[in-house]
This record gives sequence, C-alpha cells and structure tokens, in this order.
Amino acid sequence: MIKFRNDYSEGTHPSILNKILETNLIQTVGYGEDEYCETARHKIKTHLKCDAAAVHFFVGGTATNLTSLSAFLRPHESILAPDTAHICLHETGAIEATGHSIIGVPNAAGKISPEQIELAINNHLPTHMTKIRIVYISNSTEYGSIYTKAELYSLRDACKKHNLLLYLDGARLGVALTCDKNDLDITDICNCVDAFYIGGTKNGALFGEALVIVNPSLQSDFKYFIKQKGALLAKGRLLGIQFLALFEDNLYYKLAKHANDMAKIISHNIEKLGFKLFISTETNQIFVILSLAQHNQLSQHIDYEIWEPYDEQHIVIRFVTSWATTADMVDTLAGHMGELLL
Amino acid sequence: MIKFRNDYSEGTHPSILNKILETNLIQTVGYGEDEYCETARHKIKTHLKCDAAAVHFFVGGTATNLTSLSAFLRPHESILAPDTAHICLHETGAIEATGHSIIGVPNAAGKISPEQIELAINNHLPTHMTKIRIVYISNSTEYGSIYTKAELYSLRDACKKHNLLLYLDGARLGVALTCDKNDLDITDICNCVDAFYIGGTKNGALFGEALVIVNPSLQSDFKYFIKQKGALLAKGRLLGIQFLALFEDNLYYKLAKHANDMAKIISHNIEKLGFKLFISTETNQIFVILSLAQHNQLSQHIDYEIWEPYDEQHIVIRFVTSWATTADMVDTLAGHMGELLL
Amino acid sequence: MIKFRNDYSEGTHPSILNKILETNLIQTVGYGEDEYCETARHKIKTHLKCDAAAVHFFVGGTATNLTSLSAFLRPHESILAPDTAHICLHETGAIEATGHSIIGVPNAAGKISPEQIELAINNHLPTHMTKIRIVYISNSTEYGSIYTKAELYSLRDACKKHNLLLYLDGARLGVALTCDKNDLDITDICNCVDAFYIGGTKNGALFGEALVIVNPSLQSDFKYFIKQKGALLAKGRLLGIQFLALFEDNLYYKLAKHANDMAKIISHNIEKLGFKLFISTETNQIFVILSLAQHNQLSQHIDYEIWEPYDEQHIVIRFVTSWATTADMVDTLAGHMGELLL
Amino acid sequence: MIKFRNDYSEGTHPSILNKILETNLIQTVGYGEDEYCETARHKIKTHLKCDAAAVHFFVGGTATNLTSLSAFLRPHESILAPDTAHICLHETGAIEATGHSIIGVPNAAGKISPEQIELAINNHLPTHMTKIRIVYISNSTEYGSIYTKAELYSLRDACKKHNLLLYLDGARLGVALTCDKNDLDITDICNCVDAFYIGGTKNGALFGEALVIVNPSLQSDFKYFIKQKGALLAKGRLLGIQFLALFEDNLYYKLAKHANDMAKIISHNIEKLGFKLFISTETNQIFVILSLAQHNQLSQHIDYEIWEPYDEQHIVIRFVTSWATTADMVDTLAGHMGELLL
Repeated sequence: MIKFRNDYSEGTHPSILNKILETNLIQTVGYGEDEYCETARHKIKTHLKCDAAAVHFFVGGTATNLTSLSAFLRPHESILAPDTAHICLHETGAIEATGHSIIGVPNAAGKISPEQIELAINNHLPTHMTKIRIVYISNSTEYGSIYTKAELYSLRDACKKHNLLLYLDGARLGVALTCDKNDLDITDICNCVDAFYIGGTKNGALFGEALVIVNPSLQSDFKYFIKQKGALLAKGRLLGIQFLALFEDNLYYKLAKHANDMAKIISHNIEKLGFKLFISTETNQIFVILSLAQHNQLSQHIDYEIWEPYDEQHIVIRFVTSWATTADMVDTLAGHMGELLL
Repeated sequence: MIKFRNDYSEGTHPSILNKILETNLIQTVGYGEDEYCETARHKIKTHLKCDAAAVHFFVGGTATNLTSLSAFLRPHESILAPDTAHICLHETGAIEATGHSIIGVPNAAGKISPEQIELAINNHLPTHMTKIRIVYISNSTEYGSIYTKAELYSLRDACKKHNLLLYLDGARLGVALTCDKNDLDITDICNCVDAFYIGGTKNGALFGEALVIVNPSLQSDFKYFIKQKGALLAKGRLLGIQFLALFEDNLYYKLAKHANDMAKIISHNIEKLGFKLFISTETNQIFVILSLAQHNQLSQHIDYEIWEPYDEQHIVIRFVTSWATTADMVDTLAGHMGELLL
Repeated sequence: MIKFRNDYSEGTHPSILNKILETNLIQTVGYGEDEYCETARHKIKTHLKCDAAAVHFFVGGTATNLTSLSAFLRPHESILAPDTAHICLHETGAIEATGHSIIGVPNAAGKISPEQIELAINNHLPTHMTKIRIVYISNSTEYGSIYTKAELYSLRDACKKHNLLLYLDGARLGVALTCDKNDLDITDICNCVDAFYIGGTKNGALFGEALVIVNPSLQSDFKYFIKQKGALLAKGRLLGIQFLALFEDNLYYKLAKHANDMAKIISHNIEKLGFKLFISTETNQIFVILSLAQHNQLSQHIDYEIWEPYDEQHIVIRFVTSWATTADMVDTLAGHMGELLL
Repeated sequence: MIKFRNDYSEGTHPSILNKILETNLIQTVGYGEDEYCETARHKIKTHLKCDAAAVHFFVGGTATNLTSLSAFLRPHESILAPDTAHICLHETGAIEATGHSIIGVPNAAGKISPEQIELAINNHLPTHMTKIRIVYISNSTEYGSIYTKAELYSLRDACKKHNLLLYLDGARLGVALTCDKNDLDITDICNCVDAFYIGGTKNGALFGEALVIVNPSLQSDFKYFIKQKGALLAKGRLLGIQFLALFEDNLYYKLAKHANDMAKIISHNIEKLGFKLFISTETNQIFVILSLAQHNQLSQHIDYEIWEPYDEQHIVIRFVTSWATTADMVDTLAGHMGELLL
C-alpha cells in the first residue's frame, strides 16, 4: 500500500547512501570527533555565514529538543510554545522529564504571535510561577504552515524585549525554506534565533539533525549534555557523512523542493475534485476533511494518518510527501480520491 | 595511522550494509513498528529460546542503559555496580540525571561478587539511604574479563535472595560468549538476569543494541520510555534490518570470535616480546603496561587509548580489536612494539 | 493594616501553641517516629474510619503534592487537572521538576467533570503522549468552590473506569467540609480517592499537612520519598503534636467553620452594598469585582490579593478569612467597602 | 530513657519559644517576605560583615542542600565530597534525585584535602564524565571533627585554582565555631566559601537553617528554587523569628558552647574509665568503641546510635550532646558507663 503517512517512510537518498558505502571501511575516531563531522560542521557554518555558531549532530528530533532545551535552561525556567508544538503533544513529556514546564498557548495554524508572548509574560508572576525563558517555534509548523520574514523578526524582537531565547525546531526546515510562500533565507534564521536545528530525518537523510547554536553564551560544555542524554552516537561519522552529502550541490534544498512540488499537485488535485482542505497547504503536509465513509474507503488503498476529529461525520486526515514521492504515487492517490466521489 | 582505540572505528560489516542497501526504497511505518523489526525481534527471541521476553532496539548503549534502568526503578531506588562500570565512569552521570544513585563497590577485574552484594545490602539502612534495587554488571567487563557460568548463577541467587533485579550490559556480549574461557550460553543469561542487551555497535553493526527484557513485570509500557528519552528512532527499520543480518548464519558470533582471535595473537605477541599485561586478556581488550618513553614512541605509529596511570614511570594503555581487525594490522602492531625494545 | 490576604497570616491557634509549649523539653526520637506522631496518626485513621490508610505528615502543601504525586507515578505517567489547580499555576513547576507532565483542562469554578476526564483519555494517544494516571482535584478549590457528594462519587467512577488514581488536595479541606453547601463526610473522601491531604497550615496550625494514602498499593516505602525530597522534619514531633490538637474536641472543624461564618458575613455585606461577586462564595474565599478606582482606595486600608483582570476598568480581588478573623475585622472591612460608594 | 541519640531530641530553647509566643497573633505576609525575616536576614549579614550576601531560610538541612546545590549546578555538573558526607550517605539520594552525581572520595576523619581535589580533577576526563563543579564539606563534619583556618583557606585556594565552588554544610556550624580547637571566625567562612548554611535545627531552634549565598553570581532568582522544591514555608515568619532570637545576645554561640562543654566532660569521663574513643572528640559528637556485651547492657539505660561495626566483637557507638544536655544527664551516663566495667 502506498504510504503518505510521513516523510520518513523510505531509507535515504542514494547520494547519501553512496557516501556511507564509500567510507565504510575507513577508520575514524568516535563520537563526532572525526574528519567528516569536522568538515560537515564547517560546511554548514559557511552555508549559514555564521562562523560563531556551534554545530552538533543528533540522530533524531526529540533527542535534539530535549538535550538542547534542558541544557539552555536553569531548573526554574520554562518554555512558551504553541499548544500544537511537537514538544507539547508528541514527545511523551520528554521536556518535562528533564524537569521543565511547557506553557502552551493557543496556536494559529501552528504558529504563535508576539502579542501572545507579551501577554504570557505579563500574566506570569514571579516565584510561585516558573520563569519563562525560551520561546519554542517550529518552521514549518506541525500544520505545515511557515513563518514569514516579518513574522520571524517580530518574534525575535518580542523575545529580545523580555530577555527570552528563541528556539526553532527545524525538523521540516527544508520544506519551509523552499516553499512558494517563503521569503526567509537560512541566514535570517541565524539572525533571529538563539538555536535551531536543520532536520535531516524528514528530508532524505537516513537519520540525523544538525543543531546550530547561534548564541555563544549557550555553547559551552555542550557535548557533555549530548553524552549525558544518551544521544552521542559512537560512530558519529555517520552523521557527518550524511550532512556533507546534504550540503553538496544544494541537495538539501532540492529534496525539500521536490516534496513541496508533489504536495502542491496533490493539494491542487484534491481541491479540484471538490474536497475541502482543513488548512491551506504551504509545504509538504496536506490536511483534508473526509467523511467517515470516504475515510473507510480510501484507507483501504492508501496509508495516511488520521489527524483529528472534525465533526460528528467528518475527520481530518493528513498526507505527507517527501523527497521520495513519485509522480506515479501522486497519480494513484488522485485516482483513489476520485473514486470516493462515484 | 592504524587504530586500536576501540571496536567501533569502522562502519559496518558488508552483510549488514548490503541489507540496508537492498531495502532502502521500500516504504515502512516508523518507530520500530515495521516488519523488519518485527521479524528481528522474533528471531532474537527464538535464538534466546525465550518467547516471554520483550525485545526493544536502541541506537546506542548509554541510551539503552539510562532508558531501561530508569524505567525499572521507582524514584527512591538505586543501583549497585562495580566502580569500573560504564554507568559509573563513562556516561556523564546519565543515570543520576534520571534521578537515581549508583553505589559503586570495588571491582575485581571489572567484576562484582555475591559477597559484595550481601555486604552492601546489610550496610544499607532504610529511609535515610536509597533502596538498592538493581545490580548492574557488564559481560565482557570494562576490563575485558568475563563472568563464568558459576559466577553468573551465584549472582542471580544473591539477587533473588534480596529481591534485587540483575541487569547485564552486553555492549560487548559477543566477545564474552565466544572467548576461550566462556562456558555461558546466551540462554543462561536469560535464566539469570531480568534484562540485558545484545550489543551491536561494538560488534559489527553500523549502530544498534537489542534490549531484552526477560522479566515480564518490567515490560509494560516500555515504548513510552524509549520515546520520552528521545531514543525512539524514526526509521526504526534500520535497527531491525541490522539485527536480522547479525542473527543470520551466526554472523553475530563469527564477528566476535574474529575480534577475540586477533586479540589473542596480539596478547601473545606482546608477552613474547616481554611486555607486561596489566590484566590477563580474556576477550578483545588488551591492557598493557608501557613506560612513558615507550608510549611516546608507540603513539606515533598506533592510535590507542591511555587507560590509567600505573606508577610514576609507567602507564596502562589499551588496544581493542574488532570484526574489522586484519592480520596485517596485528603484524604492524607487533612490529612497532618490537621496535620499542631496540 | 488588616489583612484578608490569606488564611495563614497569623501564627497558630492557642490550643496548638500550648501543646507545643507543654511538650517542649520532653526528649523524643526524630523523623516522625515519636509517640506524638504515632498517636496522631492513629487518631486520624480512627476519625476517618479507615484503618488501612497510611498517614504521613508534611510541613507544607507543595512538598506534600510533589512528594506524593511523584511517588505514585512511573516516569511516563502524567496528571490531569483543572487549569486553575495549584499544581498547574502556583507551585513553580514543582511537579514537572520531578519529571512529570500536567495536562490542564478548562475549569468550571475551579472544578473538573467526569466528561472532561473521559474526553482527555480518549484524545490521548499511546507512546508519543504521556500516559494519564492521576486526576488531581482540590476541595475546596482555588476559587473557593466545593465538590458535592454526587460530583465526587462520579469522579471516582470515571477514574475507576479508566484505571486512574484520584488525588485530592485538601489544603482547604476544613472549610470545604464545614460550609453550608457541603454534603460530604470525610469518610466519603476515603471512599472516593486514592490519596488526599488534610490541610493544617490554612486551618489554624503553625504549619503542617497530613497526607492520607488510602490505596494500599501506594503505601510501600513512602518514607523514603519524604526524606529524598527534603521534606522529612527532624523534629517530626511538632507535626504530631499539632494534629493531635487539631483532632481533639473537633478543633479542626470548629476553626474551619469560623472562617466560613466570617466569609458568609463579608460576602453578604458586599452584596448588600451593591458590589458584584466574581463567583458565589461557598467557603472562606470571597472574590469581588472592583473598579480600579475602588481598588486604589480600598487597598490603602485593607491588605488583600489582586486575583485577575476583569475588564479594562475592573479587576477581581480576593478576601480570605480564617480561624483568626474577628467580627471587628469584618466590620472594619464593611466600613471601608461602604466608603467606596460615597 | 535519657537520649544521647542526637542534638534535636528536644523542642527549642525557651528564648525562641517565647518569641514565637509573643508574636503569635500578629498578622504578617507569607513566604518569608515579612518583617521578622527581613530583620533576621539583615542581622545575620551584619554579623557576617558581608552585606553582599543573600540569606534564605529553610526548615531543614536536606532541603537546604538539595535546593541550593541543584540551583548552583548546570545539568552536567557534579559534586566532590568526602565519602562520609551527609549528602553521600544519609539523604536518600536527594542530590541525585535532582539529576546530579556526587563523587565521593575517601575521608580523613570526615574531611577532604586540597590534594584530593587536585587528584580528582586531574583524573576526571571531559565529556564522558561529569564536570566537577562544587566541593562539598561539612563543619563540624559527620565525625565531629573541624576544619582549621589553614585547612579551610587551602581548600579555598584549590577550588579557586580549578574554578570550583566551595559549599559548606553548617548543620553543626555552631559547635565547630565554639570548640577548643577552632581558630575560624564566621567571617573566615564568608571569605572562603561560595555558600554555606548556619544550622539551627541542631543548635536549639525548633527547626530552621539559614543559607548564606556569599557569591553574588549564585544569588539570582533563588526564591524560585525554594518554592519549586516545596521548601518555601507559608508562615516564613517562624524562621525569621527564630533566627532573630538565635542572633541576639550571642545565643547561637552560647548554645553550641554548652553542647561542646558537655561533650568534653563525657569524653573525659569515658577515657578516664578506660574506654577507647574511635575518634578524638572535637565537638559535640563522641564516638566510643564498646564490646557487644557492653553495648547490650548500656543500651538498656541510655538511648544512643550504633554508628558502625568495629571488629567482630566491638562496635562504634555515638553520643551527641546539645544545648539541652544537663550535668545530671552527663553524670547518669558516666554512672552507667562505669557499671559496664564491674
């Protein structure tokens, strides 16, 4: 059955796999101290035009979030996030397990506004409440939407005003930076946030995320935290090799662009057929409203995720495209969607 | 420079890499719910002749230890371990970071005895001290030594007597079970411990450890813990695929046996040349006493780890062999060692 | 300036202070193992008609909550609570600091309903979300409201249905059980909850709360947790002595009843003067809507707490009465409130 | 039975109890923001000649240690302490429960030396081991011994050299500063340590410890931590009132001096009778070696603590004196000890 369940259904892009193959028997030191990691870190910093950044590789997103956020916070400090944030909903309380509270505020299509930051800070009393210290955002968000340049800079200003750190979860950063609506350059992100990560797992890597700590005051001793959280890969070379491949010939952006292109076609097909999108498609996630009967029929042919209830008779489902989605798969989906209307 | 620094200097055994290659574009669900993982779990349980066990895959050893040990303990419970245990010394306080104390007792060649368990329990007072609940051992140990069948069963008995759980860190289980001195079968381990892991990273895998929870009372809800600790691999298939390969045609044991064979030759060469071993070589770790001058010379040709000071003029160094160690590398090492004596 | 800021502005009721005085030079063992504590625990269990309960004394409410809730939970389990719950808002993330998430649901006058429990459980997916295990309620609530017998029993049923524990924060249990609207007996509470505490600090004690663990499966090893959290009082006798006094001659209930009586008069006065209550007064907390100008004037004479904004021109303030509130203080308040209308 | 079990067997010194009595019905704000606390903090800082210090009151020692040490550390940082330290042995893993490791080193009569600090730092490798950040000492120690001026200043120098914080647990600071051997002034302590606490519970208070944070860089946001750990007393006034009394007319030192005087007599009597001290008596703790038969007889008349085994036929027991120990009690003890020899 064709899967549109997520953007990590396949292994990895062939260019990456080849690089792993070629280097397989070369001996290196462990724990990310090898030459591949060294070069990859350098390459990323050059790409970001941010030599002062520190780059650390992780195997997955939850480990990246929990390691870095808990490293940046003192025990009494907390995180402000939209209530749809991955750390709020889908990481099994990983942040709280490190001792920190997350204060969820109502999202607008997965996003948070400077006004909400202002309000939260003003309502938060000292001593008997935690001290809000980090604002967490995702780009693209859990609803596939993105932050515009104006929005990101205004979040930065709100954070600076209240001495807050801004952290961007870039599990799906590739699709955010390559979608039609985007006006952000990756260097804008360095200008605005204190730390973010460049997601590899959901953009063609076998696995891997590159955490970029822009703010120098957050960089010291960071490898201790990675080791302590069990997130320091023995054969760290695997992460360096993959990110080398991703940042050669713009591969990172090409893969993301392809996912967006496929999503645009699917989204267009769906609307043309007369189905209603739950939220307009900006990147590689497509949220569609189906009746329960339609869902029962379609799920016999296509694998996708049920997102949330819509009303008594309808639900919201999600399709996700990736670097590996083919035109054929897109057509097949359109065919099955069309049959729902017969 | 040839590396005898550890057993994870290379990528992975070709059989494993091939399986990753072959399956690369097949779509699967994530988080270890795929067919490869399912089959690998089944294969391992069959191999262990322990259908009641639960098998979970992890990317690395520290994550395996911290996730499982903290899942098995209530907040006031602690772990008894030899003071050379990996969790005591080389995991950056990962266990304590989950809120639990480790009580280190003097090791004998990396091992702990039933008498030490008895003594620790008797000296540990209620309420104002933690409650010892788990005994942690490694096989092979951090000094390369192994537990005999008699030793393991007597540890089991001591644990049962005091209602303690026995946990075995099997990062280097392969070399333990294939060395000359060994009289343990892997099914003995299932008979003796409550949980253990079969280490892949240090035995030919690209990465990966298979945690086996033998005791049914420790199995419930376990996937929550993996996710909460950031240790649930999105493309979990990679772990299933690798363990499938490792448990085909006895590959797991063959790779370990090779490492032991190479270590035996190195160890023999060293003694023949007149150097003193710090501890007799049982598996793939060789601890040698060198003078500082010898170390200065040798380290220009060979990469290895300085283990600990010996006396004012000498240090202990460590060589580690692996599935990828060649006869050539062994000869080269012998040559350079010989030159130290000229 | 007269204080209606809270119910712990004074020291302690003279009967309690006398008992401390009388016993001052008697030698006892420490840590709550003394005879006063022993007798007090027995007295409480007799009063509760629940011999199977375990009673533990704490100095304050936050320590009681964080120690017991974290002792009852496994690492992946979380707490469901109304969003006004003390643990959500006013304990500086104390629960999250022990590693557990709190899931806040919209409150109705500080309360939660069985339907909300049902909904939360149904929307909570396994593995990637925490496992809800405890429902936390307060009686009286943070808005001074109380649970009726029917409400409490229906919460119990909802919890039992989903294998949830029910925990009742009784910081203000006295006023709940002695107010006009109440139809609960303290034995009903034992029938319904797995654990609760009888608040002393806010009901005439110098300090102290008596945690009652009704559910036997939650009782084992509990003193370890108290010590580990730094909450085991060396001179534990002080807690035993106070609870002995509180449960002699119904003192606990008499003090609470007095606070309620004073609150009823204040509430009546306020409404008679034409001010609007923010929420109807059920126990010893009175929430009043004042204009900003009225607040500016009144706060020059009376000390009270600003609770929350009401609209652009108004705020909600809170008066709290206690065992020590006198008729004179009540009259003085009425006088100053009257002047606001001139 | 007369108790020499510890220095907190009685209530509190009458001067303190009177102050609690006198102020009982005065209304104050909560949480240590009242006038008594304010004045007591000022009084202590004046006494210390250290206006830049921050003073916070706690109910007990374990809460003081765990709150302050965890507030001072980042997650990867650990504590070096003698292996007899209270935090190592008798606080039920309270420090580890906040996520931090303690590295215990062999004690010399309860003390640690600069050489041991040097050695520990040199043997501690980065990234895979925690980062040692705090050295914890007690004065007087758990064996009743004290640090001399020369010793304390040399510890300070060792800490400064390695960028370590020095923390002094002053649960029994009074007896340390008033014993015959002492050459330290409390202002020396301010010169040497980053934080310490002045113990009240074991020196005549009903309860209470005064944490003094000397190092300004450790002072920010500290009240958040107290609240988060459940250690912020609602009626904080009780702590202010007690420390006001303790620092009036040198009461703190007088009470401690009395305990030392009584211990000196007991110690003298014991040696005169021919018993062997396990460790020479410097303050109010007396460690005596008794045969098992002697212990069996004596424990029928006197309540004391069994400290540790000595050999097959002997054990070490401990007597503790306090502000409340009378000459009569001392005589009675001597009488019973004498009978052991008949």
